[in-house]
Amino acid sequence: MPVIDDVYPSRIDGRAQLIERVDPVVYRQTGRKGPFTAAEVDTYEEQGFLVKPSLFARNETVDLNEALASWISSPDLEGLEETITEPHSGAVRSIFRVHELHPLYRQLARDDRLLGAASQLLGSDAYIHQSRINLKPGFSGKEFYWHSDFETWHVEDGMPRMRALSVSLALTENFPFNGPLMVIPGSHRSYVVCLGATPHDHYKQSLKKQEYGVPDHDSLRMLTERGGIEAPTGPPGTAVFFDCNTMHGSNGNITPYPRSNVFFVYNSVENRLQDPFCGLTPRPEHIAARRAVEALQPLTR
Amino acid sequence: MPVIDDVYPSRIDGRAQLIERVDPVVYRQTGRKGPFTAAEVDTYEEQGFLVKPSLFARNETVDLNEALASWISSPDLEGLEETITEPHSGAVRSIFRVHELHPLYRQLARDDRLLGAASQLLGSDAYIHQSRINLKPGFSGKEFYWHSDFETWHVEDGMPRMRALSVSLALTENFPFNGPLMVIPGSHRSYVVCLGATPHDHYKQSLKKQEYGVPDHDSLRMLTERGGIEAPTGPPGTAVFFDCNTMHGSNGNITPYPRSNVFFVYNSVENRLQDPFCGLTPRPEHIAARRAVEALQPLTR
Repeated sequence: MPVIDDVYPSRIDGRAQLIERVDPVVYRQTGRKGPFTAAEVDTYEEQGFLVKPSLFARNETVDLNEALASWISSPDLEGLEETITEPHSGAVRSIFRVHELHPLYRQLARDDRLLGAASQLLGSDAYIHQSRINLKPGFSGKEFYWHSDFETWHVEDGMPRMRALSVSLALTENFPFNGPLMVIPGSHRSYVVCLGATPHDHYKQSLKKQEYGVPDHDSLRMLTERGGIEAPTGPPGTAVFFDCNTMHGSNGNITPYPRSNVFFVYNSVENRLQDPFCGLTPRPEHIAARRAVEALQPLTR
Repeated sequence: MPVIDDVYPSRIDGRAQLIERVDPVVYRQTGRKGPFTAAEVDTYEEQGFLVKPSLFARNETVDLNEALASWISSPDLEGLEETITEPHSGAVRSIFRVHELHPLYRQLARDDRLLGAASQLLGSDAYIHQSRINLKPGFSGKEFYWHSDFETWHVEDGMPRMRALSVSLALTENFPFNGPLMVIPGSHRSYVVCLGATPHDHYKQSLKKQEYGVPDHDSLRMLTERGGIEAPTGPPGTAVFFDCNTMHGSNGNITPYPRSNVFFVYNSVENRLQDPFCGLTPRPEHIAARRAVEALQPLTR
């Protein structure tokens, strides 16, 4: 049963609608400092995302890619719940919980350029709600349909309020045509209430192809009429910070250029998970952290 | 059986390779005049394609779109062999032979901006080998995988030599993110010999999803390493002229913005079809013209 004071109800009565966000986008009142300038914070607040071209240097992304390639070719990933493969080819499509499974990505999650920025925007210490590496191969990369992460995290994971953000760090060059992340500017200000109920064990399917908790066409048209679409491009090391409620997705990729990104979801320690709002069993730890929720300690450099 | 003097063999012995083109790209020797400047002709020859932004005015594309919308909502298209529908939704995806089926598109095919330009590059009178309108709907437009049209037209239709070209005229705005046509510059100079044999009645399937006559990954990588990828964007009325052997394709489209284009394939009257080079039954008239192959007469304005 939905709790009575749920400010972000979804998938309940079969009615799609847009409702206005009640939470801040940037939690300025705590006066938390960080690496972003005031202008950058304003842009993030206004647009719901911020692009930082080449935030990481070429040699850093070379190291990250080499570590990833060794990892994928090792037996370490086989049979792990954290490893998601393509339905047909069996190729690795995503790896979850990379901030705990791999030392270099563990370090990356604690880097001030990411953790410091996240804490600045969230106005508090933060922990990783979910992390993953997405590998969109050349020639056959599949699309990710439009979604607000928060809708899923709220309904299926019990994340109470909008006080979380994602960072997508490009490990390969993002071109306009290899299925880059697309975001709808300003969409973070509206919550799209989705149709339908959440089936049991939905997460196993949804990681391959989203079918529930999907925004309806009219809401998407309304959001793009207001804000358009942006698809940030850039060299490896380019980071896109985006609010947990920013509508995003990506097209498929038939080009020979693969697209790999690492995602970290930072959640405020003030916003830890409750029971899911859908009344179902919580998703597992590697999808939505419930146990490892201590504030991340910044990397000492 | 393949004919002994076939200069562009494909799908024969299971070996993928690139062979060099033996035909001219622009048939200059006939001195045919037309609307393109010498610089435009040079660009086309060098790149294998030429973009003409807003070649048709806004009011012209409004008329074309209105005519198309009425046509699709009329019963005229139902059950026609020329009408191709989406596998799942049943929505119209393509209409073939539009230059004969609809008066406004009949007129468009004879417009000097298209027919005159085609005749100039082909160095002769021309006729329509194939025409179609493609409708890539918003939210669920599917990709078209990489292909050289000539490979199919040669093997399956018996088009003897590379003396044909396509024009894609945008009926909706082409954004970087709504599945625009992608071309590989310079790819028209190499013929990609494809794997596999051609099954009977292949055309019925191939119009939905290409499975045979598909270029291999190594060849595609080689072509993009040389030439990169371009995805021309522009308002409705923008035309892309591209050589029959230019490698092209398009990604899917999850955005709300549909992408509709009209394609005309102009073939030189010196290059009319022979028997297919695969030994199979010719594809039907609406896919590959054999009967209606008289030189198109320019529109008198």
